[in-house]
Order: sequence, then structure tokens, then C-alpha cells
Amino acid sequence: MDGSGKTTQVEQLCSRLLNDGIDHIRTREPGGTPVGDAIRSLLLDPKSTMTPITEVYLYAAARAEHVQRVIIPALQSGQVVVCDRFVDASIVYQGYGLASSLVTPELVQTVNQVALQEITPDLTIVLDVAPELAEKRLLLRSGAVNKDRIELRGIEFFSRVREGLRKIYEQEPSRIQWIDATESPVVVEQKVWHLVSQLINRVEGSPCN
Amino acid sequence: MDGSGKTTQVEQLCSRLLNDGIDHIRTREPGGTPVGDAIRSLLLDPKSTMTPITEVYLYAAARAEHVQRVIIPALQSGQVVVCDRFVDASIVYQGYGLASSLVTPELVQTVNQVALQEITPDLTIVLDVAPELAEKRLLLRSGAVNKDRIELRGIEFFSRVREGLRKIYEQEPSRIQWIDATESPVVVEQKVWHLVSQLINRVEGSPCN
Repeated sequence: MDGSGKTTQVEQLCSRLLNDGIDHIRTREPGGTPVGDAIRSLLLDPKSTMTPITEVYLYAAARAEHVQRVIIPALQSGQVVVCDRFVDASIVYQGYGLASSLVTPELVQTVNQVALQEITPDLTIVLDVAPELAEKRLLLRSGAVNKDRIELRGIEFFSRVREGLRKIYEQEPSRIQWIDATESPVVVEQKVWHLVSQLINRVEGSPCN
Repeated sequence: MDGSGKTTQVEQLCSRLLNDGIDHIRTREPGGTPVGDAIRSLLLDPKSTMTPITEVYLYAAARAEHVQRVIIPALQSGQVVVCDRFVDASIVYQGYGLASSLVTPELVQTVNQVALQEITPDLTIVLDVAPELAEKRLLLRSGAVNKDRIELRGIEFFSRVREGLRKIYEQEPSRIQWIDATESPVVVEQKVWHLVSQLINRVEGSPCN
């Protein structure tokens, strides 16, 4: 969720990985490549207007670039990839949030398939916060005037996003992990690290590694 | 084909429609809307680099916007829509031209499906010219230094595009009409007008109109 403390948690996680000597990259969507950053500007500029379908394609365009030029090379060189948002964000923000009859969660999945090149996260962490609290946090952070085009969508939009998150979590409760982000940042950080270090130990301990 | 005289022919066709009092709009892809024009700049800027999949999504993003905000409203108000390039261009330029194992003509069709909202042209005219001649015409027009990112792709790329055009023409020889664009502009113009006026007479004469 926007306003859940994602950026702080990604920073903390990457510090922990660094301290433990685990080779990793930190990246985010949309963006991470020159054309991805140009698409990000289009998507987040409050002055942009676009149809729901166009929004889905633009996120997919940035993602295709990001997967091929950033994520796949990092994985091939054995790095851990910490990514702020991925295809699940498109499914919930566009598929559920926009409430468009054309842009269903299934359509978002279909359109994104080729962008993903069969890359699936090993672990996806949802930082959950009620839209009302997220709104307060965003206002504290930057003031209403600095919100981006997506953040400006208001509480009803983010309530649909949150319902979408709950649905995809119920479909894949082992890959997707749910953390209550209303707890203190330190508690959230410990929970995140617990999940990530468990995963790394599992992968390092596996006979294939 | 680039360098086939498309722009001149679209202008001439629209003059004829105007003279005959036929309500129409002239439009082009990618572009035609503010976000579409921003995407056009990204796609055509020779300094842009992007993967084949990203290119497909960006054309689809511009097309979705164009179909919903320009083409559908024009059709609903009874106008004839003259469009310089449409989804067939994506199929041949990306699906055939890029020669990417990921981006097949079928994939381009699948990705574009929701952008089209079931809109199909009544008539698609291919202006055919050999890539070698197209290259000479483009150089005469604007000089190599002014070519856009797509025009810069060279003769092998355009040979694959032309083969792709031939294939889609063979699949739909009634919707797609093939005109040899090496003939004089006046002859090409007469052939274009013959096809368009035939179509308009057929539609106007149909019992549904």
C-alpha cells in the first residue's frame, strides 16, 4: 500500500543484506532503466490523463524493460533482487483499483505475461495499512500538493486496492506474506528480516545450491 | 512502408473526402492524444533504447488511448476515420521486422487485443515500395541525420517488414488492398480514391444506412 512505509523497509532490508555480506540489488517499479524512468514520469505526473488500458500497457512496458535489463542479469549473476513493487501491484492497482469493466485482474495478468519472461518472486511481502491511515501518513510526508497521480486517487480507490491485495494473498499464501504495517517500523523490519533470512537459508541449504 | 508516400496520399485522400462533403477525421499512430504524443516521442527518438517487448507495449499504450479517445468517438458521430498506420503496422514492424523470438506476430496480436476494443478497419491500404527505393526517398526528404529511431533500422529490417506486409495481405485480401507505390503519386492517388469511394458507396447503399 502507498503510505505503508515501503521505502523505509526496503532500505532497512538492504542494510541487513549488506551487513550479512549478501550480494543484492535494490530496484523499483516503474523505472530502473532510462525508458522505464520516462514511463514512470508519464504514469505519475498528476497532469497526465490516460485510459485504464493505457495505464496497464505503460506499466507493462516499464516492467518488460526492467525484467530484461535489470532483474534477469542480476539473477544470472547470483544476486538477490529486492524490488519495490512488481506485477502484483499492477494486478491490484489497475485490475482491482480502477474498477474498469475492461481492465480486469485477469486481463492485467494476460497483458503482463510476456513482460515477465517467467520470472516469479520467491517472496512477496505486502505491507498492509488501512487507506485512512495511509492517507494521513502521505500528508505528513509530503503534503497533498506533492502527491503523485496514483496517490491522488483517494480512499475508495485504495480500499479496492487493499481488497485486491487480500484476494491475491488468499490465492498464494506461501509466496505472498502479509505484514501489518501499522506496527512500529522496528517491529515491521524484524518481521521482514525474519521472512527474508528464512528464505535465504532455505535456498542456501538446498541441494541445488 | 516508410518512404512510400503515405503522408502525401493521406493528405490527398482527405482533400477528396472534403470536396465530396464526406465528414471525416485524419489521424495517425502513434499519437493523436497528449499521452500518445509523449509515447510517440519516446518511440521515435533515435536516442531511446528499449527491448522489443517494451516497444510492442508502448505502441499498444498509444493505440489504446487513440482508439478510445479519438477513433470510437469519431465513428459514433458517423465520421469516416482516415488513420495513418494501425495495428497491422505493429504486427509487421514489431512482429516481423524485429525478428525477436519473444515478439512473434501472434504475440503482437494478443497484446493488442484489448487496445482495439473490437475496432477493425473497413479498408487497409498498403503502399508498397522496395526498401532500397524507400531508403533513397527518405534520404531525399530529410537527410540521414533526421531519420527517426524506426527509419534508422536499415534495409534488412524493412525487407522483413515488407515480407510481413505480404503475409498479412495474403491472409486478408479483401480488407487489405495492395498498391504499388513506385507509380506516380497521381496514379497512386487515383487507385486509393477508387478503393475508398467504392467502400463509401457500398456502405451508403447498404440497407442499414
